[in-house]
Amino acid sequence: MTYDLAKHTLPSFLDRVPYFLAGRDSPRDLLERCLATIDAREAIVRAFVVLDREGARRAADAATARYRDGRTLSPVDGLPLGLKDIIETSDMPTGCGSPIYAGYRSRHDSALTAALRRGGAVIVGKTATTEFAYGATTTTTNPFDAARTPGTSSSGSAAAVGAGMLPVAIGTQLMSSVMRPASYCGHVGVKPTFGVIRQDGIHPFSPSGEHVGVHAATLADAWNISRFLSHEAGPVPGCRGLDGPADMPPSRRPARLMRMYTPGWALADNVERTAFERALARLADAGVEIIEPASDPALDSLERDFAEADRCIAEIAAFEMRWPFFEYAAAGHGFHPRIGRLLDRARTITLADYHAALDFKASFRDHFRIASERVDAIIGLTAPEVAPLGLENIGHPVTCSPATCAGAPSLTLSVMAAHGLPLGLQLVGFHAADAALFAHAAWVGAVLGE
Amino acid sequence: MTYDLAKHTLPSFLDRVPYFLAGRDSPRDLLERCLATIDAREAIVRAFVVLDREGARRAADAATARYRDGRTLSPVDGLPLGLKDIIETSDMPTGCGSPIYAGYRSRHDSALTAALRRGGAVIVGKTATTEFAYGATTTTTNPFDAARTPGTSSSGSAAAVGAGMLPVAIGTQLMSSVMRPASYCGHVGVKPTFGVIRQDGIHPFSPSGEHVGVHAATLADAWNISRFLSHEAGPVPGCRGLDGPADMPPSRRPARLMRMYTPGWALADNVERTAFERALARLADAGVEIIEPASDPALDSLERDFAEADRCIAEIAAFEMRWPFFEYAAAGHGFHPRIGRLLDRARTITLADYHAALDFKASFRDHFRIASERVDAIIGLTAPEVAPLGLENIGHPVTCSPATCAGAPSLTLSVMAAHGLPLGLQLVGFHAADAALFAHAAWVGAVLGE
Repeated sequence: MTYDLAKHTLPSFLDRVPYFLAGRDSPRDLLERCLATIDAREAIVRAFVVLDREGARRAADAATARYRDGRTLSPVDGLPLGLKDIIETSDMPTGCGSPIYAGYRSRHDSALTAALRRGGAVIVGKTATTEFAYGATTTTTNPFDAARTPGTSSSGSAAAVGAGMLPVAIGTQLMSSVMRPASYCGHVGVKPTFGVIRQDGIHPFSPSGEHVGVHAATLADAWNISRFLSHEAGPVPGCRGLDGPADMPPSRRPARLMRMYTPGWALADNVERTAFERALARLADAGVEIIEPASDPALDSLERDFAEADRCIAEIAAFEMRWPFFEYAAAGHGFHPRIGRLLDRARTITLADYHAALDFKASFRDHFRIASERVDAIIGLTAPEVAPLGLENIGHPVTCSPATCAGAPSLTLSVMAAHGLPLGLQLVGFHAADAALFAHAAWVGAVLGE
Repeated sequence: MTYDLAKHTLPSFLDRVPYFLAGRDSPRDLLERCLATIDAREAIVRAFVVLDREGARRAADAATARYRDGRTLSPVDGLPLGLKDIIETSDMPTGCGSPIYAGYRSRHDSALTAALRRGGAVIVGKTATTEFAYGATTTTTNPFDAARTPGTSSSGSAAAVGAGMLPVAIGTQLMSSVMRPASYCGHVGVKPTFGVIRQDGIHPFSPSGEHVGVHAATLADAWNISRFLSHEAGPVPGCRGLDGPADMPPSRRPARLMRMYTPGWALADNVERTAFERALARLADAGVEIIEPASDPALDSLERDFAEADRCIAEIAAFEMRWPFFEYAAAGHGFHPRIGRLLDRARTITLADYHAALDFKASFRDHFRIASERVDAIIGLTAPEVAPLGLENIGHPVTCSPATCAGAPSLTLSVMAAHGLPLGLQLVGFHAADAALFAHAAWVGAVLGE
């Protein structure tokens, strides 16, 4: 299956809801179409570690009856989706990509799993992740080229949506683990403002840095599931949830977009750079002012901070991983070298070091606030490159980690291509202004998708 | 055992460390003294739900060997302590005071349990708590009068320390659940600044409101364990840990203390009021200026806010308890009426209501900040009354909930008595200034303890 930008469409859930209500389609029929795609492609893509066809069929039948009777439970009633396998489910094991958790059955659903069930969503399966969502090797393959990575760590969630198996899958992101796989797999990825979706019952590597994010066929599907989860699972305790309308915010033209480079720009090749420059040129033609960071000292300072985001996230993660990874290590477990290196740092990091990293993060977030007074959003490559060859994590988080470190909302649109593969366009918004980011993204997506 | 303020002393851990180092006492001997007190009193006090004598003896022997060999692990090496039974322990069940968790074995230690083991502490047992640390009925009795409550919800932790069974026990507080039991049971209770001790692997009712707190024989013991946990378990992810010296901050006279009333003052009887007024008069004699809130509009406004703290905490808890309590309720479990009432609110509360409560909390915290520019600390009754008769939660959180809602550090000293029972004196400090609060409390305790 090659990637053809002009022809590439993915099956939306929201597009089908009017048909469900009119009795011309049903959640069960949608599920069966998803299962048929899974049957056709899963042997190569390997997006799932657990598939619960019968449980999903029961849930879809119940949703079908509710649509028929006009008593749906929520805006996600009947939505077939997958959950990254660090998200606890009482009826399916949660393996965390690690032998330590092989076959592990949690006592409860995670907060978001429970909310999805209450809302009538159809949980089709658990999607593959790398070891503790931080290791590097995937078993999943890229839906457009099985010799390439789907990206890490939400690899299964990304591949499932990118392959058209599901309209929505849930992932998590510490650096780039939703956005980069979405870029590689050709669909919409969203990492909302930090904290808008509760994480209890998820096994995060670094709870203060990890964001629940979504993979979706369309922007509207992404808004719908994000808003539902924020209201029903609730935000991270003490954080604010997603403000904004129940329906997808209407498209709005951004007046000014700051162009972001990050150290990732140097890693992009000429084909990838040209695709991005063309996108910028089309937006400029449509009336958007593209602001170079060098034109404004405050933006230039922010651009320089971008290069520090990876390090800040890693420092915070090294301190927070001490529990429970010190116990895993004491029990003799070994880890992927990427985790092992962080664990080495965990053994020496002090509370004062942790405070220093939190201080950098706070000042970085203040820098973002200054940018919000000058531009409507920030625009850049989601990843410096198309999906690399091989199933090791040889891609780069560096373009995504600034928004993650700041806790600012970001999303990726599959509106560019290079080397016959998808290349994501990243838009970064400002803290708690997720709805505005979606509105701008709708406009950008429409201009570039024409 | 009646309470005699003049003669009441509790066995400190830190006082014994020089003897451990000199080979004239040992962690094993200290443990045996604790176990002897437990043997003598547990049949009436009922502080523990699980006691692990043999595990504790093994840990104490290992600590004894480390002291002998001059290679101790941490400032809590050999410290015998108890853990409130919502704190997970891999080697003992965690019952959460609920039939839902009867016999529950967690897969891991909680973050603080793991830190304690790494530091060589001696975990003697799990201490009784009310249902999910929010129900009202205790099985534990007050160490000074078995017909009275030890306070809730850290009832077992409080009674164990108050009865001299252990120098330290860990509790948690959502409204008053460390401070009030410590007042009733006659020892030092500390609720530090929100977030300084990590809560992963604890079963909180309301994660953004719950604080890990400590019960201790002395202020120095309380500082030692709090600081150790903040560094070794780490803070709540994203929060700062406890700043301050390794040893107990030296005593410092506060220049000005704001007197707090709260609606609790109206509930105190004349004996309790007189005890407090006498304490204030002694502090004034010793050179402290006692500031009436009515003398300053900013402080008066803060005093009025105090009355709103209970409601704010309950609103936030109602939203956050939706997970996992909606699932417990759906499975047919019943709850104590106090939990049931909050669950009723949980069914109607919206994200907007939650945001409103968070907004109140933020403005309340700003009010506290203004007070910090005018006074060194706030002083009041820890509870409006001595331990009430009966084993239902018929005490009042209203004097403690202001500091809890603000996330400000507070502690209680057992330096007053009324009706032949202990009556705690509360000192409330300011965000992240826990060390200053301990320094002022050391001075206040010395003046009033003379």
